[in-house]
Amino acid sequence: MRAYEIVAGSVGLEGLRRCERPDPQPGAGQILVRLRAASLNFRDLLIARGKYSAAGLQQAVVPLSDGAGEVVAIGAGVTRFRVGDRVAATFFRNWIAGPAPPGPQVALGAAPADGMLAEYAVVGEQDAVSVPAQLSFEAASTLPCAAVTAWHALMVIGQVQPGDTVLVLGTGGVSIFALQFARLAGARVLVTSSSDDKLARARAMGAAAGVNYRATPEWQQEVARLTDGRGVDHIVEVGGSGTLGRSIQAIGSGGRIYLIGVLTGVAADANPYALMSKYASIHGVFVGSRSMFEKMNSAITTNALEPVIDRVFAFDEAAAAYRHLEHSTHFGKIVIRI
Amino acid sequence: MRAYEIVAGSVGLEGLRRCERPDPQPGAGQILVRLRAASLNFRDLLIARGKYSAAGLQQAVVPLSDGAGEVVAIGAGVTRFRVGDRVAATFFRNWIAGPAPPGPQVALGAAPADGMLAEYAVVGEQDAVSVPAQLSFEAASTLPCAAVTAWHALMVIGQVQPGDTVLVLGTGGVSIFALQFARLAGARVLVTSSSDDKLARARAMGAAAGVNYRATPEWQQEVARLTDGRGVDHIVEVGGSGTLGRSIQAIGSGGRIYLIGVLTGVAADANPYALMSKYASIHGVFVGSRSMFEKMNSAITTNALEPVIDRVFAFDEAAAAYRHLEHSTHFGKIVIRI
Amino acid sequence: MRAYEIVAGSVGLEGLRRCERPDPQPGAGQILVRLRAASLNFRDLLIARGKYSAAGLQQAVVPLSDGAGEVVAIGAGVTRFRVGDRVAATFFRNWIAGPAPPGPQVALGAAPADGMLAEYAVVGEQDAVSVPAQLSFEAASTLPCAAVTAWHALMVIGQVQPGDTVLVLGTGGVSIFALQFARLAGARVLVTSSSDDKLARARAMGAAAGVNYRATPEWQQEVARLTDGRGVDHIVEVGGSGTLGRSIQAIGSGGRIYLIGVLTGVAADANPYALMSKYASIHGVFVGSRSMFEKMNSAITTNALEPVIDRVFAFDEAAAAYRHLEHSTHFGKIVIRI
Amino acid sequence: MRAYEIVAGSVGLEGLRRCERPDPQPGAGQILVRLRAASLNFRDLLIARGKYSAAGLQQAVVPLSDGAGEVVAIGAGVTRFRVGDRVAATFFRNWIAGPAPPGPQVALGAAPADGMLAEYAVVGEQDAVSVPAQLSFEAASTLPCAAVTAWHALMVIGQVQPGDTVLVLGTGGVSIFALQFARLAGARVLVTSSSDDKLARARAMGAAAGVNYRATPEWQQEVARLTDGRGVDHIVEVGGSGTLGRSIQAIGSGGRIYLIGVLTGVAADANPYALMSKYASIHGVFVGSRSMFEKMNSAITTNALEPVIDRVFAFDEAAAAYRHLEHSTHFGKIVIRI
Repeated sequence: MRAYEIVAGSVGLEGLRRCERPDPQPGAGQILVRLRAASLNFRDLLIARGKYSAAGLQQAVVPLSDGAGEVVAIGAGVTRFRVGDRVAATFFRNWIAGPAPPGPQVALGAAPADGMLAEYAVVGEQDAVSVPAQLSFEAASTLPCAAVTAWHALMVIGQVQPGDTVLVLGTGGVSIFALQFARLAGARVLVTSSSDDKLARARAMGAAAGVNYRATPEWQQEVARLTDGRGVDHIVEVGGSGTLGRSIQAIGSGGRIYLIGVLTGVAADANPYALMSKYASIHGVFVGSRSMFEKMNSAITTNALEPVIDRVFAFDEAAAAYRHLEHSTHFGKIVIRI
Repeated sequence: MRAYEIVAGSVGLEGLRRCERPDPQPGAGQILVRLRAASLNFRDLLIARGKYSAAGLQQAVVPLSDGAGEVVAIGAGVTRFRVGDRVAATFFRNWIAGPAPPGPQVALGAAPADGMLAEYAVVGEQDAVSVPAQLSFEAASTLPCAAVTAWHALMVIGQVQPGDTVLVLGTGGVSIFALQFARLAGARVLVTSSSDDKLARARAMGAAAGVNYRATPEWQQEVARLTDGRGVDHIVEVGGSGTLGRSIQAIGSGGRIYLIGVLTGVAADANPYALMSKYASIHGVFVGSRSMFEKMNSAITTNALEPVIDRVFAFDEAAAAYRHLEHSTHFGKIVIRI
Repeated sequence: MRAYEIVAGSVGLEGLRRCERPDPQPGAGQILVRLRAASLNFRDLLIARGKYSAAGLQQAVVPLSDGAGEVVAIGAGVTRFRVGDRVAATFFRNWIAGPAPPGPQVALGAAPADGMLAEYAVVGEQDAVSVPAQLSFEAASTLPCAAVTAWHALMVIGQVQPGDTVLVLGTGGVSIFALQFARLAGARVLVTSSSDDKLARARAMGAAAGVNYRATPEWQQEVARLTDGRGVDHIVEVGGSGTLGRSIQAIGSGGRIYLIGVLTGVAADANPYALMSKYASIHGVFVGSRSMFEKMNSAITTNALEPVIDRVFAFDEAAAAYRHLEHSTHFGKIVIRI
Repeated sequence: MRAYEIVAGSVGLEGLRRCERPDPQPGAGQILVRLRAASLNFRDLLIARGKYSAAGLQQAVVPLSDGAGEVVAIGAGVTRFRVGDRVAATFFRNWIAGPAPPGPQVALGAAPADGMLAEYAVVGEQDAVSVPAQLSFEAASTLPCAAVTAWHALMVIGQVQPGDTVLVLGTGGVSIFALQFARLAGARVLVTSSSDDKLARARAMGAAAGVNYRATPEWQQEVARLTDGRGVDHIVEVGGSGTLGRSIQAIGSGGRIYLIGVLTGVAADANPYALMSKYASIHGVFVGSRSMFEKMNSAITTNALEPVIDRVFAFDEAAAAYRHLEHSTHFGKIVIRI
């Protein structure tokens, strides 16, 4: 089959290359998926750069955790799926429900688990979900990492309710899903961006207000103003060092900050003691379980929610898709058609 | 001031009569409210019929728990409100937040606590809330009992989330608020009614499907069909004997039934043991706290939600309003302008 | 191997008989357990009587859901256990964590799933747990059904905390575990029984007070007195018709009734409307997940808790063990050594 | 009456001095308490040093938030207490139940709210609780700040359950209450200290193990070893900068860190990103509500828990009590008899 891989020792996008791999066959309890689309996350850049783990990339791997396709064969004993079902794989293997299993998790698209940028993938039937019927494969491919992360934060930990205020940092994949889910749940949404155009698009999607952090570097003060001094109830903190300190100032009494991303680096530069008198909290989030994915799909189906796709690239243009992500000009998700 | 009262010993609507009462004055910590609208609940019929407590109505009382108006004077030490504020009183006195205080609660509109069908009412400042700015007094008057009850059930106990399925029995005040709140929260809503016309109106408000329980007396079977055999996640059980048994059949795995009303009487005719293998539960709900009211108002404001008013009566037509409620042909709330 | 079975069509204890079965072998993902002890639950009587399902027992089955033993062989791909590990099987197959999977569950000891009253059993590695190191096999065999049920009710649904009051009906298996877990969690425990001797034993185990329901048929009034009129926070309702109505009276504001058993029959004789003004709830409970079992084992280990065994029977005395359970004179669990 | 005050502009213990104040009288809704004991918290040192707020101490204040005594007079309309009741005041005014009220809170013992180091105090009846009957006034005086803080963290946010592992940093007031509450709830407790003697005392109180952080500066590694590499479920983080980073390493999957104290200073020196892949969280905690205090008292009564008093000083020795706290050699609470 046709596929891409990130070569061992890769330190940049030049490590991404086309390859041929043997057609995989499903074993007992597994399904074979003909992939139709895959999507990118910031993590995929880190993997290509050899920065995802301390040791770098020690063996070649088919990249991208996120993809969608149809079941074309099933192994012995499979009961959850049939040939023809439209599915996506879960980001993690073996996390069905409840808290994460103990020990390190295996996640797709990083060694030792090949990912979705290929014509086929073999997936354990317990590690796959049916995708919402109304979504195209392109749309469905955006869900496994970014959407589940946003759902886990806002709906599983945060239990966002109508009338809550949610602050979303930026307009990348997780942030736009967070905006959509928060609106589904009846919340008021504030968004930050460096682009007035993106803020206008976020408002068109239902955000109540936007803050341009370039024009207003002390954006936490504007958030305070927009909330009559009360601060927000939830912050989807995809930034990293430089933004967390401001988020701690922007959070309101009893509010929750979901620590998700490290776009701006990782450093100990945020003073958490302001949390104390606000009874606020910071929660680490890293994707989620199959059960969360299924519940989210139910919400997407019920509300006919459409993921926001920034741009779809052809299979041959995978490198261009990576570079587009690198430029950080996107609004929503970047997809590769397979 | 002009007011209505239910006379002591009343056993029906003839016990409702116009009266003159002295203009009340706010004491320390109290506010004086010039009421502009009041609304009716099924409970108000029971009070007029002398059926609300075993002893009947032992002293005359100004009826109706629900009303809205503006603050026209404040007592010593009041800090939460100023003259001119638009407010409603909470159904219960002294239930600010957290679980209900121990012991019997005092609720407005039943002895010994005069209610809202009067030109003025004195209210403790801790027992009042600001009403959403975009609502008329008529709309705001519908909130204290029915809306808070629906909110308490679905949002405080049930924590309804996007993708959940909510079954609402009938189209009275609590049920229509439940429909609205469930849709705000991204849930799928099913409704029962004896009227296809009301079901059509419910669908127009966002309900996914309706079941006419006159045409389909075994409506729980239709609910099973509409949920692919899984049952629903939440049931707003305002019926009483005759419906609870069906609700126990209609509830899905892990689902919750909110026991709210007794429209059809109170009897031990429902077998609860089917709850066991479904891990389902039944929760008693009886209005709620000031904190719930405030959180609900925030949701109403954020989402510009409009209460559904079936009909507005003039102050002189109060008896007609009661009779309209008695006929059970309404859809949403019945209001009296003051 | 030596085993017992309940014959097809059994309507009483005479349906229990010794048999020889082929020695089972573990397949892929399975473990072979040499059982050392098994224990009885009221459900096992219902199965022998053909009363556990409407259709009766349609095929012979090795009875008893609960047993413990050691792993003597493992199938291909097994990673959770090694030969020599001391284990118990979970009551249900395939319920790892989170809410119960959709659809009917397969539970051990009822067709089609052979149970533990045999020398060997083959168990999926995902459907087994390590038992606490300090427990004998006899003690460990008491855990899968009764202890997990009590844990699920009090600790998963009820989240019992220090200072809560827990009412336990009777002194059977679930009730004694409930007493122990509630005390572990710092709660005050009240117990009912028809025997002053059993009440004295319960007090010796830490119960604060007992109520003899034979001497005090209106035991809910005594419970009210023992709680200064407030009622209790949790009731482990293992009774059935006849007790549930009293439990609804005995529950306090915001309290929870766990509907577990049907010892006294199933009928619609309890009026649930008293739940409303108490904000109380009734929760169906039916054993639980592997994750609950593991968490409970951690609590048992941390606190060196010892299950209460009423009596241990030899393998040849299985019928006598069943009859002992039938007599309802036990206090705690009845075990069969294998 | 006799009292102590911290003089305006105080920058150290020399700002504490004896004074005479007029005997206070209870107004409407207030109670007059003859105080019998008061206890110290680290916060009281900060207040005396002028370090509790940025502006320093701008007016003299009777210090100490924590005290206990008996009601000797009641104001008009008081219903919660009678003369002779044994009571303590809540740390905050006007926080009855639910989340903290919006805006800055008024807490006793810091301007503008006089505290408990006096013969009498006037307290709003809503801001007082009955103390457990079995406790002396000395013991009861230790509860309002330190015990409620530990309860809020472990029992309200953390919902500690039997089998959980709780790490307690040090052996000051909050930490020893945390140890006791965690044991009440059936948890396994680990403790750090610089003193082997204190660790031995903690083990005698039920701690499973202690780590001497002077002998083992990388104490988080020893915590990992003591939990088989899993980390702990709860950390009572009373340290501050220097310890939080280690706590983030010591916390296990899904674990919670309660950020309570600033004994070692406040700085941005802890990198929170390790929380992400552990789904762990950090929660700000600052004392709690009256409702938490009451629930805690119920737990203390049910389990006959005795607060650990390090030393009791006479009223004349108040300055010595402060200095004893300053030396940080205490184990449990420091009390002043009045």
